[in-house]
Amino acid sequence: MRNVAIVGIGMIKFGELWTKSLRDLCVEAAQNCFTDAGTNRVDSLSIGCMSSGLFNGQEHLASMVPDYLGLKHVPATRVESACASGGLAVRSAFIEVASGFADFALAIGVEKMTDVSVNDATFALASAADQDFEAFHGITFPGLYAMLARAHMDRFGTTREQLAQVAVKNHANGALNPNAQFPFPVTLETVMNSTMIADPLRLLDCSPITDGAAAVLLTTVEEAKKMKKYPVVEITGIGMGTDTIALSHRRDILKLDAVDLGVQRALKMAQKTINDIDFAEVHDCFTIAEIMVLETLGVVKQGQGGPATMDGLTAVTGKFPVNPSGGLKAKGHPVGASGVAQICEIVEQLRNNAGKRQIPEVRTALAQNMGGSGGSCVCHVVERK
Amino acid sequence: MRNVAIVGIGMIKFGELWTKSLRDLCVEAAQNCFTDAGTNRVDSLSIGCMSSGLFNGQEHLASMVPDYLGLKHVPATRVESACASGGLAVRSAFIEVASGFADFALAIGVEKMTDVSVNDATFALASAADQDFEAFHGITFPGLYAMLARAHMDRFGTTREQLAQVAVKNHANGALNPNAQFPFPVTLETVMNSTMIADPLRLLDCSPITDGAAAVLLTTVEEAKKMKKYPVVEITGIGMGTDTIALSHRRDILKLDAVDLGVQRALKMAQKTINDIDFAEVHDCFTIAEIMVLETLGVVKQGQGGPATMDGLTAVTGKFPVNPSGGLKAKGHPVGASGVAQICEIVEQLRNNAGKRQIPEVRTALAQNMGGSGGSCVCHVVERK
Repeated sequence: MRNVAIVGIGMIKFGELWTKSLRDLCVEAAQNCFTDAGTNRVDSLSIGCMSSGLFNGQEHLASMVPDYLGLKHVPATRVESACASGGLAVRSAFIEVASGFADFALAIGVEKMTDVSVNDATFALASAADQDFEAFHGITFPGLYAMLARAHMDRFGTTREQLAQVAVKNHANGALNPNAQFPFPVTLETVMNSTMIADPLRLLDCSPITDGAAAVLLTTVEEAKKMKKYPVVEITGIGMGTDTIALSHRRDILKLDAVDLGVQRALKMAQKTINDIDFAEVHDCFTIAEIMVLETLGVVKQGQGGPATMDGLTAVTGKFPVNPSGGLKAKGHPVGASGVAQICEIVEQLRNNAGKRQIPEVRTALAQNMGGSGGSCVCHVVERK
Repeated sequence: MRNVAIVGIGMIKFGELWTKSLRDLCVEAAQNCFTDAGTNRVDSLSIGCMSSGLFNGQEHLASMVPDYLGLKHVPATRVESACASGGLAVRSAFIEVASGFADFALAIGVEKMTDVSVNDATFALASAADQDFEAFHGITFPGLYAMLARAHMDRFGTTREQLAQVAVKNHANGALNPNAQFPFPVTLETVMNSTMIADPLRLLDCSPITDGAAAVLLTTVEEAKKMKKYPVVEITGIGMGTDTIALSHRRDILKLDAVDLGVQRALKMAQKTINDIDFAEVHDCFTIAEIMVLETLGVVKQGQGGPATMDGLTAVTGKFPVNPSGGLKAKGHPVGASGVAQICEIVEQLRNNAGKRQIPEVRTALAQNMGGSGGSCVCHVVERK
């Protein structure tokens, strides 16, 4: 297996992009990535997208995206694992390069969630849950995560303030990110007084509905060394894990087994422990998710995610910064794009190019991207060499 | 890159399976595959499915399928390229094994097309076309292929009888396939008098709406040799190509560039020419498709697909048998499953296990699986060693 580096990243400003179509989003992110890399060579294309069928009445992105990118004739694969589709696209591109199937592989993550063609965005998102045993009965994602929050509060004494602090911290980071959908700070009071969505989760506990795309260009470490534009940033570990799709089928609803497997596999492949990680981009689709993920990664013990957040452990100035990009919460959450956007932020940070939100002296980072209520998870360890 | 063999195949009887859900189809095909292989070891799972979102309101198959297969925790990817999703799943599983990411990789193709949750099957299928430039304006797949048929008749003098003969030949084969949805012969007269769908295509020129799944288990050739249950059947070539998603954007609507690229790449990787191929399973979603694919593969010159079919070239007893399984036409076309089902048929034939529809003395076969109106294509060369 060949070693794989990231030589280009392309973000676009996330938001409600009424004038941009699904194909526009892909093209803009890819062009930004080519500009960044200084090459538009692509031998293979992976597209992460959760539900362009339900959102846009458009499947067959493996034909449409290369077509509109001027990459007609390039082998292309659309991959999907709900909100982990972006991370999965990076994993697919990684394997294309590692195996020798491609020397340059482009991974694009995309979701066009406004201007929905079939039913509404809530229906489309609920297709990440178990349709027969969850969605059909009316439960939505805020409802599923609200149950997790309630159970966490009950078992570990996690407080409403601690949940809110996740949003406060991520908005503080997002305020410094020009590509964020909501680049402004929020106070603890604002979060705690925002509209109730699914008790105890309020509007500002939830990541938004977002249009967006992100792209990364991968090649071999050998090729990357020749390019010289940036220090070599290598993907040294990848781990994917799955769990039951339905929350009620878990051995313990407060255990995120897919996340645990994903991170352990990624760390093992990279020959690292969690203590070697300088910062992380994690899947904060709801504030409770970031707390539970923090615990599952082993950064703190189970039950300590809330107090640790309150104490500033995960702030940009803390010992283990989490979501310097602003996370899904402030940056926005175009579901298929989020896993790729996490990698873009990590590369910016490792290149020491993240401007006002730069974390000093970082070399090793973790991306954790999760599908549904934790039914799947893709993790990447990324290092500046 | 490691060499990859197929050590298990699992089919189910295709049809309108009202009592079986999406997950049931996957489990049944996978169990049949494990029984065939004599092992249920799986390190990685690829699921090909076109539109479980629009058909079933269910995305996140990368969580649901391993969950219901008892393969919870196994890394899983759902891949999509419209009707080529199945072929793409086999390609993904191949790369997982070839790269060393997995020693045993399972590819499942599935589509549950009856009992549609959103709009209707025609709407879901049209999402394989360009939503903005084709589907939105009301064109459906029979309409797109009818335009191809009209142009082919106009330019090359292809006749209504020649189109019908494709269906007659494939139903003759399908009549011998116990897993076929329509295991009965049809006459030229029946096809030509069947209900008009999109002039000149009639009901019996069209593949049906089908529920179904198919599975194949891949491992290294080295492992396959140890298993000894069957002769070693190896995938020696894989090629994927893409083209414009919209028919009107092609350089020539009668050129299937994605198919041409797919087959040339697969043959090159296998170090073969089309003359080395003993038989093929091709994507006969409509009768005109089989004729055009036959020409694009280089089996006959462009314009000669119709007369060659009439002359029996592609019959089981002909010089280049095509679709001994009955093809999508008679076997049924659960879109995400078809590409995997093609591989199952090829393996049965190469093992000399295909019963009444066995083609004598075959060693090398080609699978050609196409998305949309030819916007993508995945080809595999498979050989008994």
